[in-house]
Amino acid sequence: MQLVGGTADLLPDALARIRQDVDTAFDQLLPVPEDTRARLVEAMRYAAIDGGKRVRPLLLTATAAMYGVSRQTAVRTGCAVEAIHVYSLIHDDLPCMDDDALRHGKPTLHKAFDEATAVLAGDSLHALAFEILSMPDLVSDPFVRGELVATLAGASGMGGMAGGQMMDMVADEQDYDLHAITRLQQLKTGALLGAAVEMGAILGRVPPEGRGHLRNYARDIGLAFQIADDLLDREGDEALAGKALRKDDEQGKQTFVTLMGADKARDQAAALVEQAIGHLAPHGSEADLLRALARFIVERDR
Amino acid sequence: MQLVGGTADLLPDALARIRQDVDTAFDQLLPVPEDTRARLVEAMRYAAIDGGKRVRPLLLTATAAMYGVSRQTAVRTGCAVEAIHVYSLIHDDLPCMDDDALRHGKPTLHKAFDEATAVLAGDSLHALAFEILSMPDLVSDPFVRGELVATLAGASGMGGMAGGQMMDMVADEQDYDLHAITRLQQLKTGALLGAAVEMGAILGRVPPEGRGHLRNYARDIGLAFQIADDLLDREGDEALAGKALRKDDEQGKQTFVTLMGADKARDQAAALVEQAIGHLAPHGSEADLLRALARFIVERDR
Repeated sequence: MQLVGGTADLLPDALARIRQDVDTAFDQLLPVPEDTRARLVEAMRYAAIDGGKRVRPLLLTATAAMYGVSRQTAVRTGCAVEAIHVYSLIHDDLPCMDDDALRHGKPTLHKAFDEATAVLAGDSLHALAFEILSMPDLVSDPFVRGELVATLAGASGMGGMAGGQMMDMVADEQDYDLHAITRLQQLKTGALLGAAVEMGAILGRVPPEGRGHLRNYARDIGLAFQIADDLLDREGDEALAGKALRKDDEQGKQTFVTLMGADKARDQAAALVEQAIGHLAPHGSEADLLRALARFIVERDR
Repeated sequence: MQLVGGTADLLPDALARIRQDVDTAFDQLLPVPEDTRARLVEAMRYAAIDGGKRVRPLLLTATAAMYGVSRQTAVRTGCAVEAIHVYSLIHDDLPCMDDDALRHGKPTLHKAFDEATAVLAGDSLHALAFEILSMPDLVSDPFVRGELVATLAGASGMGGMAGGQMMDMVADEQDYDLHAITRLQQLKTGALLGAAVEMGAILGRVPPEGRGHLRNYARDIGLAFQIADDLLDREGDEALAGKALRKDDEQGKQTFVTLMGADKARDQAAALVEQAIGHLAPHGSEADLLRALARFIVERDR
């Protein structure tokens, strides 16, 4: 599909807008209290504000917009997904996990504050996600709020993100094949990306049986996203990425790139993106942003 | 109030029953998967099963029973609160937090497994709490599920348990007075105990304006619970407690006992228990278990 006319700027504009909207929302959600909890909330703000590409909130708001959901509701819900993502990065960066010093071009939270504060700030962002989803002014229908909670909790726990992280942690002792790596990544990153898309559709009152093509879209871009990450880890620019790269090789981990080779991995990512876009065939131009986002996922340099 | 006739065994029976029911429920909620996530789920089971006194699930089920809620629903909901409590103990025990080696008489999770697994198991139990509350078969009314989620998320995050833990972490640099210690403990332990009582009433369809006396009961026993904990830390038996004691003094922290002296603290705890029981005056014998539980909280030896 050719991007023509007004759609050429669609993605850059949407990326800039979601970054600003998510930052504004987190700023409102995280007022610094006047007691000794201030340190905790400042740590949460450090990690959550001015934080990343906001791919998950963008997936959610782009999907929600297709179904006429108000921008404010979608952004708030996107912040719940992003709060889960941010907490997982804080905990993953801890010395006992990946021991990373740099994230989004600034010191990781435990470097800027301390380890105990990082553990607690992660835990508090985790709780914040569910506080956001249970606010009655988010969506008036409690059934919708319940579906949002179920989708996010399922995607982030042992059957999703945390389970995938566990599989990843023991990866150096395992001889994972392509099937196992695919499963690992579907849990570790795919589940939350998929939840973002699904939660946009839930806000739009799309019933479960009408979300199949969106789930398929999310599954394909989730895998493409991870292949792109593996390629970036091998070939990317650390200054642009704002974090340490070349870690997979150092740790002797199997990745899509080690298992398939860089060229085949690149082809596979491109094919997944086309396949993802194919799933959006029932939609017209209202899905252009999701289409552009799918391409962005493999073309990004960070 | 005198316990007469059949009520004398009320509490021991209830304590034994809730331990068994919570263990059975966690066993069902945590089947070990056949992939490399097994380690994660085994760690969650290690911490969650055969774990403690189960005061929070007992508060919840005892309250719910007053309003005719089914035992199964109440126990499941109690497991959600307990999952939050257990995750907080796992993270609090980490070397970067309290660095504890013993919990409930067995090695802490990071000692029995490793630190990274402990962080992840805590995070997964945190997510499990909200997975439990969003299961449609827990309660059919999504409004009730939404109230449960809002109550638990609010009690566990920066405005509750995690916020109190942050205040506690910086306590050695602060000169907390009795007012500040009360506030700290209301957040750190009181919020979750209060949520347990409130969630029992939510299951019983008690509207917010009918829960005031239960909130007051919970507030008073929450403080009494913490004063008893401070007394146990100073005077208790480590073998019975199943964890390291004498930590407050070592760390030079202010507690109810250091600020009031042991005798006055003991009197204060007893007065709070009587006050808590007074809040239950609108209820007849159906509140006997909550009354017995209030007394148990200050009389326990662990």
